[in-house]
Amino acid sequence: MIIDSHGHFTTAPPALGSWRERQLRAFEESGARVSPDELHITDDEIKNAVEQGQLKLQLERGTDLGLFSPGAGKMAHHYGDEHTSLDWSRVSNDLIARVCGLFPGRFVGVCQLPQSPGDALPASVRNSVTELERCVEESDFVGCLLNPDPSDGYWQAPPLTDRVYYPLYEKLVELDVPAMVHVAMSRNPALQGTCAHYLNGDTAVFMQLCMSDLFTDFPDLKLILPHGGGAVPYHWGRYRGVMQDQGRPPLEEAVLRNVYFDTCVYHRRGMQLLVDVIPAGNILFASEMIGAVRGVDPETGHRFDDTTYLLDSLDTLGDTDRRAVYGGNALRVFGRLAGVLKNVESNYPKEAGK
Amino acid sequence: MIIDSHGHFTTAPPALGSWRERQLRAFEESGARVSPDELHITDDEIKNAVEQGQLKLQLERGTDLGLFSPGAGKMAHHYGDEHTSLDWSRVSNDLIARVCGLFPGRFVGVCQLPQSPGDALPASVRNSVTELERCVEESDFVGCLLNPDPSDGYWQAPPLTDRVYYPLYEKLVELDVPAMVHVAMSRNPALQGTCAHYLNGDTAVFMQLCMSDLFTDFPDLKLILPHGGGAVPYHWGRYRGVMQDQGRPPLEEAVLRNVYFDTCVYHRRGMQLLVDVIPAGNILFASEMIGAVRGVDPETGHRFDDTTYLLDSLDTLGDTDRRAVYGGNALRVFGRLAGVLKNVESNYPKEAGK
Repeated sequence: MIIDSHGHFTTAPPALGSWRERQLRAFEESGARVSPDELHITDDEIKNAVEQGQLKLQLERGTDLGLFSPGAGKMAHHYGDEHTSLDWSRVSNDLIARVCGLFPGRFVGVCQLPQSPGDALPASVRNSVTELERCVEESDFVGCLLNPDPSDGYWQAPPLTDRVYYPLYEKLVELDVPAMVHVAMSRNPALQGTCAHYLNGDTAVFMQLCMSDLFTDFPDLKLILPHGGGAVPYHWGRYRGVMQDQGRPPLEEAVLRNVYFDTCVYHRRGMQLLVDVIPAGNILFASEMIGAVRGVDPETGHRFDDTTYLLDSLDTLGDTDRRAVYGGNALRVFGRLAGVLKNVESNYPKEAGK
Repeated sequence: MIIDSHGHFTTAPPALGSWRERQLRAFEESGARVSPDELHITDDEIKNAVEQGQLKLQLERGTDLGLFSPGAGKMAHHYGDEHTSLDWSRVSNDLIARVCGLFPGRFVGVCQLPQSPGDALPASVRNSVTELERCVEESDFVGCLLNPDPSDGYWQAPPLTDRVYYPLYEKLVELDVPAMVHVAMSRNPALQGTCAHYLNGDTAVFMQLCMSDLFTDFPDLKLILPHGGGAVPYHWGRYRGVMQDQGRPPLEEAVLRNVYFDTCVYHRRGMQLLVDVIPAGNILFASEMIGAVRGVDPETGHRFDDTTYLLDSLDTLGDTDRRAVYGGNALRVFGRLAGVLKNVESNYPKEAGK
């Protein structure tokens, strides 16, 4: 079974974006709220968006299941206040739940959290706990996105290892749900989004984790660093050396029991480095589709984000490791996933039999 | 000839740090200035610091020459005002000039610039032009460090492609001097310095350059991205794909005519990726010593930052490319270096004969 652990609903029907615009404009102009009930999207609109987008690519590439979250950049946590983020998260997550319901066994939900920067941070963490629980218990979501920079490009929040986030980590562990650490948009003209802020977020958080004892406090917490872990595998020696210089435990002990890297690396040599450096048990297959890069690589004739093609082209990954990367690890890291799939199978036996 | 294009005077005599502390305290308390003349360091103190540090490692590793700059983290451009940064730059650069004078043919200077964030940015760029010219013309410096985040961890400045920096680029081209893009310290608790902010700075600026037409305006400008270019070579496919998606020219055309990557990557597989992905003509040998990582890698028995060992262990780098990476490229990129070395040789024939 091939599980794509990182995909976003970047092709959502335009009504979603219009609702968000109305929400932000109303709040800016008068502090007013726009009700989530004012969003109207039909099942056919959702089906069309997914069938022409993510599902089409799933079928082309032979992947079985996508762990599916709202558009990451669109989370844009810096807008409005914590109530703004809460409404927007509910709207976005409910749409993901509808996708999962319309395509049972094809998509399972990963939720956005209603984070907010600045003074609203503690309240927004409490709201995140509530929204996470709602998505997991009511809609069978199996993971969440956790933004390490809710200021969206100015790094105004404390590190993810700060105690302000501990209520969220307690809930993640209790529910057996991992968080994918994923920044949202960048509103900083110095930091482009997908090729700078995204990768920098991954790199920054890895180092936060290296320098903290978060996993001593939460030995069962599981975090995923997307985009191949930013700069981390390429600079693995630097991290090993700094840990040693500072008298910290080795990376295997300090972070690799709790941290996973996805395979969103869009060329063969980069992918080779990832599987050479990071233990296979810490790698989750993912494509980030439809996401940062959409075109076809003229050097290969495959889309840049067709990471099945890249992984299959590596001859150093043995069969056992390959199965772990493609699906076995995801079933372990997303602790509720097997149960959710079993439930889908009993409700929709044909779909699950694919 | 082996030229290490990235080294810092991180072992400077303690009097330098004490002067800086007095400078910052006086400014904070009363806006007063501390004269650069109040710094007293003897030649013997300098010799001792270098002979026990960078020179010792140079001799051990068989490198011939270090391009030598002040401690990058210590530049700390966010403190005080533009006058604070100017005094501190002069003090730091004059100390580098003394090192180069005491060890002719062993070290050639790369200067720090008196940058400042916020409203002081334009004035600080003008001061940078003056200080660059002073270092190059009076002390035979051949390069400079350019900080893309003078706010030191909060990314408050415009991208390096902004026109506010154009006077500096005009001077760099006029003098035939490259800039190494190098952040200073991070005062942001979310962004550790050497393993997060440093790498993120490299990655962020690469993307700034990809998305701009800076090199159309300055076809002869040469910029160096240290630390192996941050996350860039590992994500080369992502950058190729985004350039194609956005209808921009290919990377070879858009950036590789003007941008160079150094070899500060501290494990063999990372180094292999660098030389596999980046054309040899765009790679400059460097170790960043004595810098981010100081210990010995127990897996190799060599120091993590002994990048000669790592480069020599790669069997895919041919002799011609190896010579280019080790020194030929540096002589081309640092356009004044050959002349400076010739001058040293005629003044100190024995030293230069090493």
